[in-house]
Amino acid sequence: MSHLRIRGVEGIGEIDRGADLARLISEATEVQDRDILVVTQKVVSKAEGAMVDVDPDDPLSHKSTVERESVRILRRRGDLVISETKHGYICANAGIDLSNVERGKAALLPEDSDRSARRIRDGLRGITGVTVGVIISDTFGRPWRRGVTDVAIGSAGIRVIRDLRGTTDTFGRELQVTEVAVVDEIAAAADLVMGKSAGIPVAVVTGVDPAVFLESGERSGVVPDLIRHPSEDLFR
Amino acid sequence: MSHLRIRGVEGIGEIDRGADLARLISEATEVQDRDILVVTQKVVSKAEGAMVDVDPDDPLSHKSTVERESVRILRRRGDLVISETKHGYICANAGIDLSNVERGKAALLPEDSDRSARRIRDGLRGITGVTVGVIISDTFGRPWRRGVTDVAIGSAGIRVIRDLRGTTDTFGRELQVTEVAVVDEIAAAADLVMGKSAGIPVAVVTGVDPAVFLESGERSGVVPDLIRHPSEDLFR
Repeated sequence: MSHLRIRGVEGIGEIDRGADLARLISEATEVQDRDILVVTQKVVSKAEGAMVDVDPDDPLSHKSTVERESVRILRRRGDLVISETKHGYICANAGIDLSNVERGKAALLPEDSDRSARRIRDGLRGITGVTVGVIISDTFGRPWRRGVTDVAIGSAGIRVIRDLRGTTDTFGRELQVTEVAVVDEIAAAADLVMGKSAGIPVAVVTGVDPAVFLESGERSGVVPDLIRHPSEDLFR
Repeated sequence: MSHLRIRGVEGIGEIDRGADLARLISEATEVQDRDILVVTQKVVSKAEGAMVDVDPDDPLSHKSTVERESVRILRRRGDLVISETKHGYICANAGIDLSNVERGKAALLPEDSDRSARRIRDGLRGITGVTVGVIISDTFGRPWRRGVTDVAIGSAGIRVIRDLRGTTDTFGRELQVTEVAVVDEIAAAADLVMGKSAGIPVAVVTGVDPAVFLESGERSGVVPDLIRHPSEDLFR
């Protein structure tokens, strides 16, 4: 638990619809049991064909797509829309963005990012025999603090929340802060080696506490387990 | 930029008021130029004596302290108060917590966490001749997503926001997402080796993109540069 390594995976190249991400990753790098792969949303959306046409001369032409991908608008200011997407994420412009996609196209979020993560995990196991955790990451803003950070929008093989209930501090007192969003911390960590423009869509994280990996038969995913239910949410 | 290592620093021991954190860190581990040290708020608060008495038999006795440390209450639910602290952070219970402190005490946030970070950075430079970046981290919740993550509450020697304006994507188009909260990503990454109960209050991050380090004469800090001004904030 006290030593972590994160490396960016280069050489994956441009991703076309139908691309087999597990195979491309396995060809670009070596993975080991209990590594965690962080894969950026953009390459997943491209491989799954989650793309729409936009008018390249009208930067606002994807606004109707933003509304279509949203179930609820939380805030608007100028061109910016903060909404709840049909998947349940709350983010700017329904997670749709235009960078690193060809002119005239915009990338939507994957239909089901937890499933996308499972597909990559299962694919890698089939090709290499190795069992990894997989996180699909995207770049979200947040209230109150400037700047964006990468967070998890899907995962496979990992407990998205690390529950420390019942563990005690160094004084033997039960911990107050009990639920750590470990997949978001890993997604943020991976962004430090990926950057935004560097053509590094995948990172491999080695050395994460083994307790985060699911036991066989257990399930956990970002959408069912990390998104706060509106009834628990003080800011919705 | 494509390889990062993070290690937890053990053996720092219990921290008393007046402890010289730079010296304790330099005795516990070896640091190199351009390492980034992440130091948890709790040991900084203890070293600075930012502690208050609470009634150990009344778990709510620190609530009046929460109100005193706050300038504005955003939300209340049951025992939980989300407020803006006098420093400008928005977090639960004014960042005051009872875990990993002795019974009958609660730790406040440091008076000025950017200054605390500078003090550790300057101290380490004096003792070792090495110039590092320093981040003071704390554990905050967030709206919309379950669980907590570590974020930066203070920093020294680092650009808190990495501004990618003017850089282009792999298609030569200017990037839309331009400001990355790199100190928060580093704080989150460091938490992966620190845990909450493990007695690892410091992590060393090696291999961060050199572009995040301040040039001589430049200044950047969490409070002046990362906290969103209320006038820009859609959720306050």
